[in-house]
Amino acid sequence: MKLIAVIGGRKASNKQLKIAEEVGRILALNNTILICGGLEGIMEAVSKGAKSANGTTLGILPQDNKRFANDYIDIPIATGMGLARNAIITCAADAIIAIGGEYGTLSEIALGFQMDKPVIGIDTWEIEGIIKAIDAEDAVRKALSLIDSSV
Amino acid sequence: MKLIAVIGGRKASNKQLKIAEEVGRILALNNTILICGGLEGIMEAVSKGAKSANGTTLGILPQDNKRFANDYIDIPIATGMGLARNAIITCAADAIIAIGGEYGTLSEIALGFQMDKPVIGIDTWEIEGIIKAIDAEDAVRKALSLIDSSV
Amino acid sequence: MKLIAVIGGRKASNKQLKIAEEVGRILALNNTILICGGLEGIMEAVSKGAKSANGTTLGILPQDNKRFANDYIDIPIATGMGLARNAIITCAADAIIAIGGEYGTLSEIALGFQMDKPVIGIDTWEIEGIIKAIDAEDAVRKALSLIDSSV
Amino acid sequence: MKLIAVIGGRKASNKQLKIAEEVGRILALNNTILICGGLEGIMEAVSKGAKSANGTTLGILPQDNKRFANDYIDIPIATGMGLARNAIITCAADAIIAIGGEYGTLSEIALGFQMDKPVIGIDTWEIEGIIKAIDAEDAVRKALSLIDSSV
Repeated sequence: MKLIAVIGGRKASNKQLKIAEEVGRILALNNTILICGGLEGIMEAVSKGAKSANGTTLGILPQDNKRFANDYIDIPIATGMGLARNAIITCAADAIIAIGGEYGTLSEIALGFQMDKPVIGIDTWEIEGIIKAIDAEDAVRKALSLIDSSV
Repeated sequence: MKLIAVIGGRKASNKQLKIAEEVGRILALNNTILICGGLEGIMEAVSKGAKSANGTTLGILPQDNKRFANDYIDIPIATGMGLARNAIITCAADAIIAIGGEYGTLSEIALGFQMDKPVIGIDTWEIEGIIKAIDAEDAVRKALSLIDSSV
Repeated sequence: MKLIAVIGGRKASNKQLKIAEEVGRILALNNTILICGGLEGIMEAVSKGAKSANGTTLGILPQDNKRFANDYIDIPIATGMGLARNAIITCAADAIIAIGGEYGTLSEIALGFQMDKPVIGIDTWEIEGIIKAIDAEDAVRKALSLIDSSV
Repeated sequence: MKLIAVIGGRKASNKQLKIAEEVGRILALNNTILICGGLEGIMEAVSKGAKSANGTTLGILPQDNKRFANDYIDIPIATGMGLARNAIITCAADAIIAIGGEYGTLSEIALGFQMDKPVIGIDTWEIEGIIKAIDAEDAVRKALSLIDSSV
């Protein structure tokens, strides 16, 4: 089973949230496991989308208590490690899809590249190395094909 | 869904491995998610047991690559954090079952208590606070009832 | 320069605090750098002792803000990592001296052994592998000689 | 004592290395403690500069062994945590100076902003929020004044 991290901030535009939900749904339809930060905003939208297609969702939480996980997280991993949990998300993922995002997302994009993971982006930071996608379907397709080619 | 951590070393006696496998099986039958260190020995036996009853298994790995996970891990979380991953296992768990074990197990027992988690033990370290269980069924029953009473 | 971790709980007896202060003083006189958890109790007493002899003191804090460090910490390292910081203390140390201690101390003793570090104990947990010391001077002498012999 | 993190990659231009060395020297002359990643490139140059003015240098290493620290590190903190150590560097720092840098540096810039730390940059990533400095002296002056104003 492939683990795909979807990263993005707590604050997001309606358009970004809609994309995130669609990405979650398509990831689930492709039998991948979703890994994310487990909180609000993009993290909640992508989890909601994954659950709408019966996917499995993991939330790697900065807090030491799982009650902070959003309602669509099947498996909350309360790390108690604060933002160091960003490095766990990128380390565990086979590929990373960034949607919108604030500084937390930027840190995960950068950590992803430092760990040689493919990073696909939609409406996110302009950082060299990001594979741009035009929509949710394109993002998932690119993520899956980059994993296959790296094996 | 409840997350139960089962902790124990890479080296274990046949008797301990058999208990671990039975603990994994009974945890799965009780609709809990198994979280463990993802490697060999007790970790592999409990994962094997959980899969035999169609359970879900998570392995929180010290390495930065999921290829180190044993064959019965559904969701490998490669943390790249070395032994600091012990603190993630205990933090994410609702209750902890210790079987046999070397120093790694002892560190997880202690971290568990520091985080106020119930720790059930079978044939493991003699540490004040551990709830002793006489067999796999007793261990799972005690773990589940301690979670319910702490909610 | 050698880094010696002194571990022990927030709660300690007057006798243990006095030993910790003396251990800190003797470590400083032996030109070692003290590394500890940076908080109260044994951590504060050993730091106070080290400063009384002009030593250098590091506090590896679980919090994300250095204001939690005790008054005798020269260099507070706010990790924001919660109890996972226990693993940093033991990983960074050349040798570990345990005084008294609760479950946090036990976790550090165990992590120390898992990382193959020498652990010297005064009035602490009874765990196989701990080198017992009869007083502060004995503890420091044993710590230093074990480092030398392991190089 | 103030802790200033200087971040930058293993690979750097001669000009960047020279700036880093000068930043280290001026930080030491201003009685600050240098915290860095402890390895080569910018990390080594800034440590060398700090030692040339008798400063104190800390290296927060990703590895679990201090032998990886460069020759100018007084206090190596072997974390064994891989790239999660990036989050420790930014968390412990009062202010951050970025010089040049690859993806690791970018992750630390982003983590710094996520933790509300002032980030000063010389010849580094173009990220919103970075305070640009024209040379080493300007960078240190801005770092120190931003810490004072945030207290």
